[in-house]
Amino acid sequence: MDRLEQQIRFIVEIDKLKAICRRTRLIDRSRDENSAEHSWHIAVMAPLLAEYTDAKIDVLKVIKMLLVHDVVEIDAGDTYCYDLAAHADKAEREEAAADRLFCLLPADQATEFRSLWDEFEAANTPEAKFANAMDRLQPLLLNYQTHGEYWQANGVTIEQVRQRMAPIAEGSASLGDYVQHLLASAVERGYLASPK
Amino acid sequence: MDRLEQQIRFIVEIDKLKAICRRTRLIDRSRDENSAEHSWHIAVMAPLLAEYTDAKIDVLKVIKMLLVHDVVEIDAGDTYCYDLAAHADKAEREEAAADRLFCLLPADQATEFRSLWDEFEAANTPEAKFANAMDRLQPLLLNYQTHGEYWQANGVTIEQVRQRMAPIAEGSASLGDYVQHLLASAVERGYLASPK
Repeated sequence: MDRLEQQIRFIVEIDKLKAICRRTRLIDRSRDENSAEHSWHIAVMAPLLAEYTDAKIDVLKVIKMLLVHDVVEIDAGDTYCYDLAAHADKAEREEAAADRLFCLLPADQATEFRSLWDEFEAANTPEAKFANAMDRLQPLLLNYQTHGEYWQANGVTIEQVRQRMAPIAEGSASLGDYVQHLLASAVERGYLASPK
Repeated sequence: MDRLEQQIRFIVEIDKLKAICRRTRLIDRSRDENSAEHSWHIAVMAPLLAEYTDAKIDVLKVIKMLLVHDVVEIDAGDTYCYDLAAHADKAEREEAAADRLFCLLPADQATEFRSLWDEFEAANTPEAKFANAMDRLQPLLLNYQTHGEYWQANGVTIEQVRQRMAPIAEGSASLGDYVQHLLASAVERGYLASPK
């Protein structure tokens, strides 16, 4: 039962991801989203939108990557993507978290999940590029649906959002086009300040 | 863009699953769990515990099943598993919800996701049996970790929990054994009232 006990310990530990708050409002504006439900949302998106990738991808690998990509936030916290100061030591904090968390698992699964996380972070493979596209598209949809409430509250500009969303086109040219169309609409509707 | 617009409409709609509360306490006891984060948790569990199935299973199919198995609750609400009265019209409510929600998707994906949901509900295939095992094991772990707070609050007996957990052994004999061991410990520690 030793192996199963290790797996259960990891499963129990990651319950904490439900308490990590992101700076994204739910569409009903009742509260901020947490990282566990965000991970669920993008994991559902992946098989639905996989047809738009330009490369052939392993969808199971993408989903597993998305399911665990934020687990490191249990120790490292969520770093707001537009907070440059907090990004200074983000990599270091997250590496330490990955070391601790994935090592709760039996060695073979620790290696598999750690390498999925490393691959997601490096964003070089077709799977990692598509997974990163899902991770960026989802909060864009929520921000759009909440009329840019948090963009405005945090003084986020269209240039910042364009830069943040640029990797989506690397995961999928069609989704990249869709994002351009959505951002133009966000500016037109006043959800995001128009460029100076 | 019509097809993509349909997919995005579904993705936006299912954000509502984050507002559906379950009668399970998070391990830190800060609040009740919602169905979106529950779905994330069991989707992570599936690849970690797939080695314990007795049949050969398609893990991608199991994960997709788990990711969407609760989506019907957006319309039908969460039905507490120990509330027999609420179960009277559960199937009817959930069928109507599945009709509406999956049909937001393009026809081919609507058919795929609807049939994944039907398969999960019928619990006859190896994938559906294993998926159902994950769906039952996860709240058991949370109830155990919170010392049976909600079992006691809802007057749930060991017999009821045993009956509810019985299908786990159909998905995996080893996990069935583990559950027996966990339930014996729950009784020993006073988390669940011992049988009369």
